[in-house]
Amino acid sequence: MREQLLAAEKVQAIDWHGGALYLLDQRLLPQEQVWLRFDSAAEVAQAIRDMVVRGAPAIGIAAAYGVVLGAQACLAAGGDWRQALEADFQRLAASRPTAVNLFWALQRMRERLQRLKDDQGVLEQLEAEAVGIHASDREANLTMAQLGMELIRKHQGSEQVLMTHCNAGALATGGFGTALGVIRAAHLEGLVERVYVDETRPWLQGARLTAWELAGDGVPVSLNVDAAAAHLMKVKGVSWVIVGADRITANGDVANKIGTYQLAVNAMHHGVRFMVVAPSSTIDMALESGEDIPLEERSGDELRLLGGRPIAADVAVSNPVFDVTPADLVDYIVTEKGVVERPDSEKLAQLMCRKRLH
Amino acid sequence: MREQLLAAEKVQAIDWHGGALYLLDQRLLPQEQVWLRFDSAAEVAQAIRDMVVRGAPAIGIAAAYGVVLGAQACLAAGGDWRQALEADFQRLAASRPTAVNLFWALQRMRERLQRLKDDQGVLEQLEAEAVGIHASDREANLTMAQLGMELIRKHQGSEQVLMTHCNAGALATGGFGTALGVIRAAHLEGLVERVYVDETRPWLQGARLTAWELAGDGVPVSLNVDAAAAHLMKVKGVSWVIVGADRITANGDVANKIGTYQLAVNAMHHGVRFMVVAPSSTIDMALESGEDIPLEERSGDELRLLGGRPIAADVAVSNPVFDVTPADLVDYIVTEKGVVERPDSEKLAQLMCRKRLH
Repeated sequence: MREQLLAAEKVQAIDWHGGALYLLDQRLLPQEQVWLRFDSAAEVAQAIRDMVVRGAPAIGIAAAYGVVLGAQACLAAGGDWRQALEADFQRLAASRPTAVNLFWALQRMRERLQRLKDDQGVLEQLEAEAVGIHASDREANLTMAQLGMELIRKHQGSEQVLMTHCNAGALATGGFGTALGVIRAAHLEGLVERVYVDETRPWLQGARLTAWELAGDGVPVSLNVDAAAAHLMKVKGVSWVIVGADRITANGDVANKIGTYQLAVNAMHHGVRFMVVAPSSTIDMALESGEDIPLEERSGDELRLLGGRPIAADVAVSNPVFDVTPADLVDYIVTEKGVVERPDSEKLAQLMCRKRLH
Repeated sequence: MREQLLAAEKVQAIDWHGGALYLLDQRLLPQEQVWLRFDSAAEVAQAIRDMVVRGAPAIGIAAAYGVVLGAQACLAAGGDWRQALEADFQRLAASRPTAVNLFWALQRMRERLQRLKDDQGVLEQLEAEAVGIHASDREANLTMAQLGMELIRKHQGSEQVLMTHCNAGALATGGFGTALGVIRAAHLEGLVERVYVDETRPWLQGARLTAWELAGDGVPVSLNVDAAAAHLMKVKGVSWVIVGADRITANGDVANKIGTYQLAVNAMHHGVRFMVVAPSSTIDMALESGEDIPLEERSGDELRLLGGRPIAADVAVSNPVFDVTPADLVDYIVTEKGVVERPDSEKLAQLMCRKRLH
């Protein structure tokens, strides 16, 4: 399976070489494939804010490389480079509030920094840490893909109709995806009849990114408006909703792209299983429940304009871009450390003590 | 109340004068206000198909005027004009499948035609029938606005947070709306704190039409993506979802714009009341349940393109534009004949026997 999965990897959105970070501009996909080069932490922070790169694991990885870029500049400038680098940590941490992978990655970089005994080989070590975060996310994708696929196989031996929301694919991670990793693995195992993809307004991650990724892999995919999800569950025999996550709290509540919550309510209403796929770096044991998660609200222009053209009346807009799905609507949380069925505080605590499987 | 409501009428989208039909082009609103002139039944059928005019009551009214235009041409051409007019009836009936008001209006025109003793005053009588359909829809709006507002007042005496989907306003009717009529009346009575309007993909009726209508009336309105509805129900204290309908079957099942069904499921989950506002011409006693309603599926280009520009990956699209909300998710159906609470076959049958209130 691992080899099959690796052979199926096609898309990647984050590249580090020659001391610079390259990001595939996700604002332009799939119509244009443009790579942008970043040489400073401030630029990377702006790219995260502007959604050149998006997806919880991917912004964590980008931020880690952002720290390396910051260290390059601070060391070159001389003086108290550790003090100067602190500003870059702050800048990167302030780029987006909801996905905890960002803070997790920055914390890992900070810990590596604190372990450095002297100023020898600083850049090499920070770079190794960032590359390690990137590589282990890819490994986590592979493990989760296998675990999630096995859940589908456990419940159903035949081709299933799946549904996903937003983009939890190669573009959102360091590998080939969390939710889409599971869907890809299930497709390789002959367990996928069709995947319904919510277009995911306002940013259209489903229409632009997920539909493109899955079609590129030959997975039978149909695009639908977000509001059609419940109707399609009813008339198309959807058996699983599979999504990623931006933050999971200690009790198993899940923050994810706006619309995930109402999908979960509708999944319960229709007896459709609800699977959340996310690396353990998405689990925030410091927060008790979803009510504590800061939920980003973005500009109303994301609804008012499309490509700069007005598409709505000029009125007030409420544009929360994440919501919280309470743990009791979640059937499975799949992580690289293992699977949690019907999550609660005890099971999450147990999971987070486990040694990594890989 | 009636006088206040009439004084608040601002927008209209259907105008008949000088033997021609004029429609406000709803594809261009709110950025442009363009009236188009129609002189034949075939043109009107095309306008309904292309959504120059939309909204169940409005397309019924437009079709009635379409018959008058057809009769003008057939009578002028001489020969078997009744036979010739039959083709126009067919054309108009084939324009859109889901909203039953279209077929109801055509049936009323046909019955008037059948009652004509000879060929004397044919045009005058058909025109009077179409004008009567238009005028009685406006009256029905006024009655429903009052009845629906009284339901809100019965349950809550103070300002409420409401939610609506698509456009069931002046642009969708001959008056000032079904769902939006109720919201307007509630606003006049000081019962509205804020109205959350789903943008309603793919055609953006909420963003373009409803937000524009309500803002024009000074109703506090916030626009949101369709996928945010459940989250907003939870965090904003929404107490009513108020929507229109395209067809209501004998058991109280409601076909309406795609997304209505999942709103209803989420309303139930959050203890939010669910009110459907529609004239009795929307009730189809010939169909037992919602499963019998033909649900229109429109072109996938409605999702793939916006203003001719590609906004999605080039994949298969599932674009059902209506769904069915089962009666057991509906708290109230408000018609001009009265209110049905927790609809079922018996209550609907009773309602449809009643004399009109006005």
